[in-house]
Amino acid sequence: MVFYLIGLGLGDVEDITVKGLNIVRKCKRVHLEAYTSILCYGLDKSKLEEFYGREVIEADRTIVEQNADEILDGADVDDIAMLVVGDPFGATTHTDLVLRAKQKNITVKVVHNTSIINAVGCCGLQLYNFGETVSIVMWLDGWEPDSYYDKIATNMEKGFHTLCLLDIKTKEQSIENMMKGKKVYEPPRYLTCAEAATQLLKIAERKKEAGIEPAYAESSPCVGLARVGWEDQKIVYCSLKEMSEYDLGPPLHSLVLPGQMHPLEIEMLNTFKF
Amino acid sequence: MVFYLIGLGLGDVEDITVKGLNIVRKCKRVHLEAYTSILCYGLDKSKLEEFYGREVIEADRTIVEQNADEILDGADVDDIAMLVVGDPFGATTHTDLVLRAKQKNITVKVVHNTSIINAVGCCGLQLYNFGETVSIVMWLDGWEPDSYYDKIATNMEKGFHTLCLLDIKTKEQSIENMMKGKKVYEPPRYLTCAEAATQLLKIAERKKEAGIEPAYAESSPCVGLARVGWEDQKIVYCSLKEMSEYDLGPPLHSLVLPGQMHPLEIEMLNTFKF
Repeated sequence: MVFYLIGLGLGDVEDITVKGLNIVRKCKRVHLEAYTSILCYGLDKSKLEEFYGREVIEADRTIVEQNADEILDGADVDDIAMLVVGDPFGATTHTDLVLRAKQKNITVKVVHNTSIINAVGCCGLQLYNFGETVSIVMWLDGWEPDSYYDKIATNMEKGFHTLCLLDIKTKEQSIENMMKGKKVYEPPRYLTCAEAATQLLKIAERKKEAGIEPAYAESSPCVGLARVGWEDQKIVYCSLKEMSEYDLGPPLHSLVLPGQMHPLEIEMLNTFKF
Repeated sequence: MVFYLIGLGLGDVEDITVKGLNIVRKCKRVHLEAYTSILCYGLDKSKLEEFYGREVIEADRTIVEQNADEILDGADVDDIAMLVVGDPFGATTHTDLVLRAKQKNITVKVVHNTSIINAVGCCGLQLYNFGETVSIVMWLDGWEPDSYYDKIATNMEKGFHTLCLLDIKTKEQSIENMMKGKKVYEPPRYLTCAEAATQLLKIAERKKEAGIEPAYAESSPCVGLARVGWEDQKIVYCSLKEMSEYDLGPPLHSLVLPGQMHPLEIEMLNTFKF
């Protein structure tokens, strides 16, 4: 029998592929990975259950990372599936799960789907002109990491665009609740394009103070993408300074810093001008 | 009304999303882009028509690039769709089509799907460790371009993996037929991993002869991927030399040159050892 890893794409219930849906309907058990992405917002277990016409079991971080056996249990005799927002190989955790399954001689099949890594092409910037993807971490209480800056600078230098994935905090515990051993979670938080642009400009300022010419400035162009693939998708092309003050609405957001642009790319971006 | 660009994913009829399928079924006219990808092999118009239960109009290169008006015709009063293998923004042509639609005040909506750009994650190499994607061109009759070498070398230097997309020649005319003005096309040709590895090794040899230390050698590891997402998908992890002699079967093939690898990546690749 087979352990299926099924991508859900950009987060609408109808974004599953026909192949994926057919498999979900025939599997003995269906798990839903509930932490790396958007599931707290918009798409939830009950919506999926209604659409699939079957039960879906939520698997939180602890189970997927530390208790994979629970998910794989019985996959040697029945078809079992795990649903993952985006493409199944967007996160390291799933590689680990595949390896565990292989060690148990369980056949693994993957039903791919889109992720922001290729959907970002909708802004008009060509996928083959992107350099390394970076993750921008949410600044909290004086913890202000900036390790992604160097990657952006390297991309810029080479003329590449940079896709910045923005931090998501779901199922986080407050220090107080953690110490009390209470499994009470803070409301999910998503880094917005405005916040990310603000952080980036702060980093540029600090570089300048340190005598380094920053890779970008307030006037540098950027592209903000919100809810890609959703009915209310929004794309905005403006300066980093403007982005730092612009409200793109509900999550998820992604930010792109364009490198060298071709005329066709510029023409397309101009249709999203602020 | 809306002009829909709908991704078909990796090429099986069932790879369309539920959203995409619902749109295809309600549109007045559905075009199928018939040249940038795998459509000659395995998936064809008749299979799609049978699956969708409706007519599909094939649009060849000339129409999409030079006669976009034909495709957009009537999209101001009816819903019209164009189907594209992979994700709609994998190719520049579609950006152009979107721009033309926008100029005509036609609403454009995109239904994203997976493309090899993110599906390549199935080999175990992490997507965020990939550098620039390159296209390896088929060598023909003494025309032996090697411009992709520099990009691979740059990726290697930075420790990044390189996804090499392999050349596809469909609807090519022989010089004879072209001169005679005959619209007779050569059978489609697809660059294989073996051919690509052979070309890469030839380039390395030439660099050596020119006194340059090449970025890779016969013993360098590589990953060959064939028919990703299909029932008979095949992934092989071996040396470039071995790959140059290995038959991965029918198209499409893609080749990956890994950069610096993490233990989890190596563990996963080892499950595909030759």
